Amino acid sequence: MDVEYVNSFILATDNVLKTMAFVTPKVGKAFVKKENEILGEATGVLGLANDTMKGSFAIAFSKKPILKIVSNMLGEKFEEINNEIIDAVGEITNMICGQARGDLSKKGINLNTGIPQMIQGKDYHLYHKIRGPILTIPFEIDEGTFWVEVCLIENHS
Amino acid sequence: MDVEYVNSFILATDNVLKTMAFVTPKVGKAFVKKENEILGEATGVLGLANDTMKGSFAIAFSKKPILKIVSNMLGEKFEEINNEIIDAVGEITNMICGQARGDLSKKGINLNTGIPQMIQGKDYHLYHKIRGPILTIPFEIDEGTFWVEVCLIENHS
Repeated sequence: MDVEYVNSFILATDNVLKTMAFVTPKVGKAFVKKENEILGEATGVLGLANDTMKGSFAIAFSKKPILKIVSNMLGEKFEEINNEIIDAVGEITNMICGQARGDLSKKGINLNTGIPQMIQGKDYHLYHKIRGPILTIPFEIDEGTFWVEVCLIENHS
Repeated sequence: MDVEYVNSFILATDNVLKTMAFVTPKVGKAFVKKENEILGEATGVLGLANDTMKGSFAIAFSKKPILKIVSNMLGEKFEEINNEIIDAVGEITNMICGQARGDLSKKGINLNTGIPQMIQGKDYHLYHKIRGPILTIPFEIDEGTFWVEVCLIENHS
């Protein structure tokens, strides 16, 4: 996977959260995911595809960071993960992928996306079915950590 | 959402499970999902997209049906949901969407897909971020029920 793809998603995540939620996440060191453990309680996932490539994007929030982010976005204090939070996770997923796609299209890479799916719970694991590296990037804000996962491979099907 | 799209996914589900797992599911009556409750313990999701449409596909298995299906597929008895089961859920998701896409392409609808994501757990809810109906189709085998969810809308973004 070309690191250039990943950078577009990192920049988009940073930018969307700064612009929409007024938080400035500290971007941690990317690592290749070994275990399929997902660390969040509210996760947005979105498939990425064109005629020659396929992949997926996920953003996994633990509880305190997503409550802070959505409270800032909507100007209302949230104490629990409810439907509005879940909907906002989908919106954040859409916005990040939208910006990343815009960035990648300037480099001649045009990706389509499906619609986001959101997973909410305390006891689940998320897996990506891909024969290739899944790059995980931790982002930190005062309230805790959230994770972006990106994988993208050439499509030989 | 055109019912024709949904039929391609119903036929593909039936066909993949018959061919790969030697089970003949009884297709129940499709209904529009109201609650975001997902009823499975192992779920495969896949985004669908082209330049004019976007959507998502999900197949949610409760425990006994997926153990039976993968035991049949792999010729080995599984008693618990493990990594092989999760991988098989991704494979089943891929195969069903592959067949459905093939069927739809004969009708002039060419959809790209990302890569499947699989969710495993006992305590999670799955949501689709879409302003449109999410059609749920129950399938029944002797061991229990599993559910296919399809949503597909015109892309105005």
